[in-house]
Amino acid sequence: MATQLQEARRGTVSPAMRAAARAEKVPPETVRRELARGQAVLPRNPAHRGLRPAVIGRAFRTKVNANIGCSPERSSLAGEIPKLRAALAAGADCVMDLSVGANLPAIRRRLLDSCPVPLGTVPIYEAFWRAGGQTGRLTGDLLLSVIRAQADEGVDFMTIHAGLLKRLVPLALKRQLGIVSRGGAILAKWMVQHRQENPFYVRWDEIMDICREHDVTVSLGDGLRPGCLADASDRAQFAELDVLGELVRRCRRRGVQVMVEGPGHVPFNQIQMNVEREQKVCGKAPFYVLGPVGTDIAPGHDHVASAIGATAAAYYGACLLCYVTPAEHLSLPSVEDVKAGVVAYRIAAHAADVARGLPGARRADDAMARARRSFNWERQFRLALDGETARGRFEAARSAIQGKADHCSMCGRDFCAVRASKGLSRRE
Amino acid sequence: MATQLQEARRGTVSPAMRAAARAEKVPPETVRRELARGQAVLPRNPAHRGLRPAVIGRAFRTKVNANIGCSPERSSLAGEIPKLRAALAAGADCVMDLSVGANLPAIRRRLLDSCPVPLGTVPIYEAFWRAGGQTGRLTGDLLLSVIRAQADEGVDFMTIHAGLLKRLVPLALKRQLGIVSRGGAILAKWMVQHRQENPFYVRWDEIMDICREHDVTVSLGDGLRPGCLADASDRAQFAELDVLGELVRRCRRRGVQVMVEGPGHVPFNQIQMNVEREQKVCGKAPFYVLGPVGTDIAPGHDHVASAIGATAAAYYGACLLCYVTPAEHLSLPSVEDVKAGVVAYRIAAHAADVARGLPGARRADDAMARARRSFNWERQFRLALDGETARGRFEAARSAIQGKADHCSMCGRDFCAVRASKGLSRRE
Repeated sequence: MATQLQEARRGTVSPAMRAAARAEKVPPETVRRELARGQAVLPRNPAHRGLRPAVIGRAFRTKVNANIGCSPERSSLAGEIPKLRAALAAGADCVMDLSVGANLPAIRRRLLDSCPVPLGTVPIYEAFWRAGGQTGRLTGDLLLSVIRAQADEGVDFMTIHAGLLKRLVPLALKRQLGIVSRGGAILAKWMVQHRQENPFYVRWDEIMDICREHDVTVSLGDGLRPGCLADASDRAQFAELDVLGELVRRCRRRGVQVMVEGPGHVPFNQIQMNVEREQKVCGKAPFYVLGPVGTDIAPGHDHVASAIGATAAAYYGACLLCYVTPAEHLSLPSVEDVKAGVVAYRIAAHAADVARGLPGARRADDAMARARRSFNWERQFRLALDGETARGRFEAARSAIQGKADHCSMCGRDFCAVRASKGLSRRE
Repeated sequence: MATQLQEARRGTVSPAMRAAARAEKVPPETVRRELARGQAVLPRNPAHRGLRPAVIGRAFRTKVNANIGCSPERSSLAGEIPKLRAALAAGADCVMDLSVGANLPAIRRRLLDSCPVPLGTVPIYEAFWRAGGQTGRLTGDLLLSVIRAQADEGVDFMTIHAGLLKRLVPLALKRQLGIVSRGGAILAKWMVQHRQENPFYVRWDEIMDICREHDVTVSLGDGLRPGCLADASDRAQFAELDVLGELVRRCRRRGVQVMVEGPGHVPFNQIQMNVEREQKVCGKAPFYVLGPVGTDIAPGHDHVASAIGATAAAYYGACLLCYVTPAEHLSLPSVEDVKAGVVAYRIAAHAADVARGLPGARRADDAMARARRSFNWERQFRLALDGETARGRFEAARSAIQGKADHCSMCGRDFCAVRASKGLSRRE
């Protein structure tokens, strides 16, 4: 079996490419071309039944990923399915299961069965859990066997922290907040303990074999992403990025689809530089950013703090945005938090698509303006990214307004600017 | 009595400048210099008792304004005081009373009595209400008498839509959404009906006399701000801006403090240009932006959609951000909405201050990073922009964690990256 990348290079437009092109309203050839160049990925493990193919790249709509999954101290199988549903209902384009606790394989299988969008994982979580939470018992063989098993099951993309080399650990430990990536921290501990190189890096060719066989898209993890503004854009981060650039080239040589993960915590003024540097170092591989948050002092509201950074990142070059929820830095997200996170990120993705002039992106905004002009509330709710919330707020406040009122309760009839302004147009 | 602008020009450092400088942790001379140049304002009507002076300008912390006030169909005197308290508790730097309904003067007086930060109004709202909601009964004399009465009472700054000239109305009516400013729409209707020029513009010198006498800061309203992306950066908007530039010069000549209001709805990629154009046309007068929202399809979440634009605006040149709440486009905000709006905008203001390198701005972020490293949760809550929410979320989830746990419920003990990474630092 060939990967989508291999097919695209051969000039074949696969059914998955065709389906993705339909969803994007672009010619199938555009999808094929972007995949062949490695500037887009189409995560789609043939073992994942019921998947709607989606393409991730700069030529297409900016996508949003929602992280769900349980921790050892929180959540359960029963708790994750409602989060998956909430993420999908709010419009998530892909989902990652970041479970780290017991029942991890059962939760993943259940999520895969219920997930029509690409599902991603971080295999080191399962391996570490299988090793009893002991880096001493974690081995390269175990890591590979987990990757293989998850690929067999149908996982579409996997975060692999292969760029965090042993020589980079001291750079990270000089930082204010060290390593904030869970996978990165496990690997760093392992390398220090075993005095050996990163096992993902050492066994990269074997990983390539598995990913090529199952068309698993590699998402190169940034184990050294900054965890606070003070650590942003530092030597540790960019030294790891250089390794990721090498790994992108190795993926492409082997016909494996690849994207690159990015920060994290980055001041607003450094976002453009970060995104452009990634694009340069990694040969325009799709950039998958987490936020970034532009301030560290917004716990409880990090969906807002990071939607700001995510918009800038998507405007300047990212094409997949990993959401951050209001629970970030404090706890695992609830179902409501998952929804709030996805909505904030769809706003970011869409605002960026409008700003970068993606064809057709502004159609919904223009339709909304017309619906506002004509006081067509039903149409406004249909066009809204979160029509349910918009309707709920409007209806709770409309008591004073009857039927097809030509104003709303915000300003009242006499003070309605749109109403007055329309009256003038008619007069002229 | 001299205005703060006149005092500053004479080289006098007033007690208000000194107080504002203390709050900003800058030398008083910096405040005086910026005021003298007209690049900052210090809204402070001597009749407003109990006011804590605050300075608004690029040399200082970016400020956040919260709009409160009732509509004819919603809210009451009793309802607005809790909103004022919520805005202040969340950290609003100034407040505007946008009431348009009955009890308008009573509400304003009550707010003034309870408001330790600068309070702004839009005098045409009271005048229109006094005219029975009839543009036919609205007169220049009525407008001036309202401005005078509000200045007597202690209003610190007033939005005056003097730039919307008669010749600009046809430009606005060609738009998708026409005029979305309430004051702008009333004035446009008045000008068309009476076939006369904007009464604020005609009687500008008399307005200057009142504002100089009471040191009322003029906030030049943008009656033609775009109400949707399609109308952004159009001829109507920039033609009005040119008039605002002329009015800035006239304010400065008369010793009246002045700032300039801006959009509205603007795509992310046009924000820098908008802000820079205002700064150029208006001689670097402080720019006071409403959002802007970068997409029209986020009703119910416009605090998020607009905090994105507000961050970019503040980064590129705005210095006062008028919040937008989750209720925008749907209803008047509740007390909870006021809080959500202020918090979102404090995030935007702070993220921009960090990004533009305002001295000391990142201190709280760096302290937060240290508090996170040491798992000092109490300190994290104290440093947070909204510590109450952060604490509530953390405590609701902490059941599984006892006392001074060195991890949180998000990842659990074994998967805590910060814990693992600290362990490595100790080892080395």
